[in-house]
Amino acid sequence: MNDVITSKFAKLGVDSAPGQEALQEGGAVELRGPKLEGTPVDFSHGDVDAHVPIPGSLEIFSEGYEEGGEQAYTPYRGRQEIREDLAEKLASFSRAPIDPNSEIILTPGTQGALFLAMGANVGRGDKVAIIEPDYFANRKLVEFFDGELVTVQMDYFGTDHGSGIDLARLEEVFRSGVKLFLFSNPNNPTGTVYSRDEVLRIANLAQQYGVKVIADQLYSRQIFDDGEYTHIRELGGLNPDNLLTILGPSKTESLSGFRLGVGFGSFQMIERMEKLQAIVSLRTAGYCQAVFSRWFSEPEGWMKERVAAHQAIRDEIYDTLNAAEGFKVRRPDGGSYLFPGIPEIDLSIKDFATALRQHAGVIVTPGTEFGPQFGQSFRINFSQDHRAAVAAMERTVELVARYRV
Amino acid sequence: MNDVITSKFAKLGVDSAPGQEALQEGGAVELRGPKLEGTPVDFSHGDVDAHVPIPGSLEIFSEGYEEGGEQAYTPYRGRQEIREDLAEKLASFSRAPIDPNSEIILTPGTQGALFLAMGANVGRGDKVAIIEPDYFANRKLVEFFDGELVTVQMDYFGTDHGSGIDLARLEEVFRSGVKLFLFSNPNNPTGTVYSRDEVLRIANLAQQYGVKVIADQLYSRQIFDDGEYTHIRELGGLNPDNLLTILGPSKTESLSGFRLGVGFGSFQMIERMEKLQAIVSLRTAGYCQAVFSRWFSEPEGWMKERVAAHQAIRDEIYDTLNAAEGFKVRRPDGGSYLFPGIPEIDLSIKDFATALRQHAGVIVTPGTEFGPQFGQSFRINFSQDHRAAVAAMERTVELVARYRV
Repeated sequence: MNDVITSKFAKLGVDSAPGQEALQEGGAVELRGPKLEGTPVDFSHGDVDAHVPIPGSLEIFSEGYEEGGEQAYTPYRGRQEIREDLAEKLASFSRAPIDPNSEIILTPGTQGALFLAMGANVGRGDKVAIIEPDYFANRKLVEFFDGELVTVQMDYFGTDHGSGIDLARLEEVFRSGVKLFLFSNPNNPTGTVYSRDEVLRIANLAQQYGVKVIADQLYSRQIFDDGEYTHIRELGGLNPDNLLTILGPSKTESLSGFRLGVGFGSFQMIERMEKLQAIVSLRTAGYCQAVFSRWFSEPEGWMKERVAAHQAIRDEIYDTLNAAEGFKVRRPDGGSYLFPGIPEIDLSIKDFATALRQHAGVIVTPGTEFGPQFGQSFRINFSQDHRAAVAAMERTVELVARYRV
Repeated sequence: MNDVITSKFAKLGVDSAPGQEALQEGGAVELRGPKLEGTPVDFSHGDVDAHVPIPGSLEIFSEGYEEGGEQAYTPYRGRQEIREDLAEKLASFSRAPIDPNSEIILTPGTQGALFLAMGANVGRGDKVAIIEPDYFANRKLVEFFDGELVTVQMDYFGTDHGSGIDLARLEEVFRSGVKLFLFSNPNNPTGTVYSRDEVLRIANLAQQYGVKVIADQLYSRQIFDDGEYTHIRELGGLNPDNLLTILGPSKTESLSGFRLGVGFGSFQMIERMEKLQAIVSLRTAGYCQAVFSRWFSEPEGWMKERVAAHQAIRDEIYDTLNAAEGFKVRRPDGGSYLFPGIPEIDLSIKDFATALRQHAGVIVTPGTEFGPQFGQSFRINFSQDHRAAVAAMERTVELVARYRV
């Protein structure tokens, strides 16, 4: 192995990543006090047994399978009829047109869209701006494609309207030669939704400095309290050729097991993404593509109920954490994540996560996955059984108290 | 966009790739003589309607779906129970042990395994040896990961036992600093199977020069005439840490619509592949992973019948092409591909493919996808309806005759 690739993979850790807990060794964490009993909860990802997939998903998959070759072998960017259907629905949702032939690609999950989009844009040495904190794979992708990481902070505790993105810093880094800006909205892990003013400013700055933008809007269908949500593509301030939006039905709609995602917008980016998809895994699993037809066509009231159920869990968990001594917590505007700050404890956040898993049956994602400075935070995905989730957070608060300095 | 990435994607074409024919413009090819009528056949990939998936595949998928979260969210390298089951079956098939914890990864198709394996091994400037002709994505992968392409020819018409690989040249390039050797066996597109002596020599040379090997054995369950097949991993001549074998049920078993593949062998490579999978698409679609349990557990006699059906198609197509004036053709030892040489014609092979599609309803893959020197060859995947395939080849022979110089 040469040094380039050895150092590249040394940076790409997965042991603490969500879903990988089974790989962790446990280590020598001192366990304080009696075991905290209760239903185990894995907050590293949503629970599709508590919040089941869109009704009819399996049936439509089976129809795709029965259709045979036409559904099994699609163009790399996905089956034509499905792209046409989705282009219409997504244009309506995001309030801007989409050409089904050139401006949309079906991908293996939203992660697939993100990988292809980054691969299509980031060349060796390109400066790429990301938010801190933001989805933990963002920084890994920049590193994998040999880009230069430039970070912009978000003061999510400092405001209760919008994300708290440092717009002055954003302009500064755009001016300094950033080629690409990637951000999630609603933000993962904090659940903040960017205000209309913030999104407009991002669009205008990107246009002014010729910066390309990838907007990861994975949770944009799950906005609480009937709050406002602004799709950057609806504003028109940014050249559409420089903007890609990504989305998928893995989260709110619980279709993660099918691995479905979509990228739409810039035809140049999509052309490259398809070329890359051709060598990455050819296409989104053909039979799974059929399931897209249920997305944005959920039964009447189904999505509303789903969002309300999550809002209720959010509220009770927020109240639990907000009442806990030394915790800092912001109520999420959207999405299923909460990113509380905890008081100073005797353990690293990674060791705390290990203790919590071993001693209380609770799995959380250490804040350090989102940036080295988040050593006093953890992320939870609260798309769980309501009662079990609240009880698990109560155990978490108790365990934090035992390790307080 | 910077120059690095622009030139990278300029090399990554997909318009002539199998399955992408709908994107082709057609162009101004002069069409000679009357239209050749007959059932359209797309030889760019197998026909899963003519050769259906392993019985019970949909049922086992449905069971996985009904199981819910455990099947939807697996570790990035795939669900533990499935890895255990497959490790045992694949060890028996390939005649060498596999540790289910560290030596196997489930991937989105065999293409997924190939991408991850190449990404795990090829750093900027690394010399990578590939065979010409071989699977067309191989060269694209080397280019995408900034490797340096080194080619070794295969004189597939010059022998009727083994592949005809130029072993002297292989040693020369290994000696000159090649880091990685990638080859498919049975070879895509020619259908040659490497002889035991050839495989042994490859293993010994790789060991001698410290070269890593990726063996793409996608078609290794489809060997004709009860011929011998040698798994490079069974020989033991090469350090197992330097060898990865890839395989999948997309071809002979017709499970392509689920996107399933597997890489097994070197634990170092697999560790890196998992790290990469985590940012590429997280995991092989969870519910689809369930379908792996049918693989290598087909009903009694099912695989034998499937291989016999393909052998019969091979023979009749071989006879058709062999009898055609000016054609050069070698009978494939395994797999579903045939790669005939055609007499000199008035068109480029790409334009001939266009004419053939428009005028005779036959889709083939131009030889130039496999190397610039194959301008007088095309590839067919003969996993088709038997009668339709033979008739389509008769139309192809007729059209070649019309354009002969």
